[in-house]
Amino acid sequence: MKLQLALDLVDIVGAKAILDQVVDLVDIVEVGTPMILREGVTAITETKKAFPQAQVLADMKIMDAGDYEANIAFDAGADIVTVLGVAHDATIQGALRQASSRDRHVMIDMIAVKDMAARARDVDAMGADFVCVHTASDLKASGHDPLKDLKIVGPLLARAALAVAGGITPDSLPQITPHHPDIVAVGSYITGHPDCRQATLEISKLLT
Amino acid sequence: MKLQLALDLVDIVGAKAILDQVVDLVDIVEVGTPMILREGVTAITETKKAFPQAQVLADMKIMDAGDYEANIAFDAGADIVTVLGVAHDATIQGALRQASSRDRHVMIDMIAVKDMAARARDVDAMGADFVCVHTASDLKASGHDPLKDLKIVGPLLARAALAVAGGITPDSLPQITPHHPDIVAVGSYITGHPDCRQATLEISKLLT
Repeated sequence: MKLQLALDLVDIVGAKAILDQVVDLVDIVEVGTPMILREGVTAITETKKAFPQAQVLADMKIMDAGDYEANIAFDAGADIVTVLGVAHDATIQGALRQASSRDRHVMIDMIAVKDMAARARDVDAMGADFVCVHTASDLKASGHDPLKDLKIVGPLLARAALAVAGGITPDSLPQITPHHPDIVAVGSYITGHPDCRQATLEISKLLT
Repeated sequence: MKLQLALDLVDIVGAKAILDQVVDLVDIVEVGTPMILREGVTAITETKKAFPQAQVLADMKIMDAGDYEANIAFDAGADIVTVLGVAHDATIQGALRQASSRDRHVMIDMIAVKDMAARARDVDAMGADFVCVHTASDLKASGHDPLKDLKIVGPLLARAALAVAGGITPDSLPQITPHHPDIVAVGSYITGHPDCRQATLEISKLLT
């Protein structure tokens, strides 16, 4: 199981300070949506430049202009770009075409998808590299977690790797790991912890 | 009928060059998603600073963290921010709360919404300021246009103003205006025209 570190509520300087402490423990570095909205592709470029050995995921949450926007991320140095599962097929296919021609990857973010099983089958068949079961941060207050969707989506994927995201902590992780996601994304538990490295080690131990 | 000019495939310098020619003819200046992805909130701040008299819409296409991401746009000077209609209610409500507390506005982008009538009623009842019927640019090649959805959504809105977007040109506009949208968003027809001002005048004439 790989660890994806989601950098959301920090700027480039803050992201680098965290990565300096933990990048050796992390498989995928996620440049989060708010970072991209604030700082643009510079956030991607700077992260890749500072940590060239890391796989960098740009959480662009693409909803339209799939080929064009995927290339914005890839041009900036992203290895993986996210496209929303609720987007039109043509948008997902556009991003996949660009990824495939440049040896990069697409993760489909299943946030707010209504028919999780049907859409997981769709995007898997389209050739998505990763399908991410993702509980919206706006739903956390109401007690939602990604476990239910993980159980639905996991067994349906024939080709795509399975990722899971949304408020994951050392407390919730033991319910998640038995479903064997390929990637577990963790954000605020690590980035908001007074000792980021300790928090990452704690998570890492539960992933093995 | 107001005219919203969508600035998508340009950078800040290109956007300013276009606005210098046409800003007096435009009611809402849209800082498009690709501009924000490339340049971050600087694209919003610079646009508002250069054209303080213009209403600036930040096409953030918010899908999660509604309050947090709406504030990123508002802090940067946006008067209006877009939130996706496919987002969870909690995300839309979060953005609406921030908008209302700061006297700003939220436009719901109905791109890829499946049950257009039901969702239009939902977001209207939640207090959205604008509901935008929007054909994805990725669907234009297959001949889609926003007319069908405009006919469905228009009559359902009790409170929100109606906007329409997606490949609109002087050829398609005469089919749209009889449905009385409050806002018509035009992008590439103007920004890709050798004479932007002439193109804007041509559109403006059809809106009155």
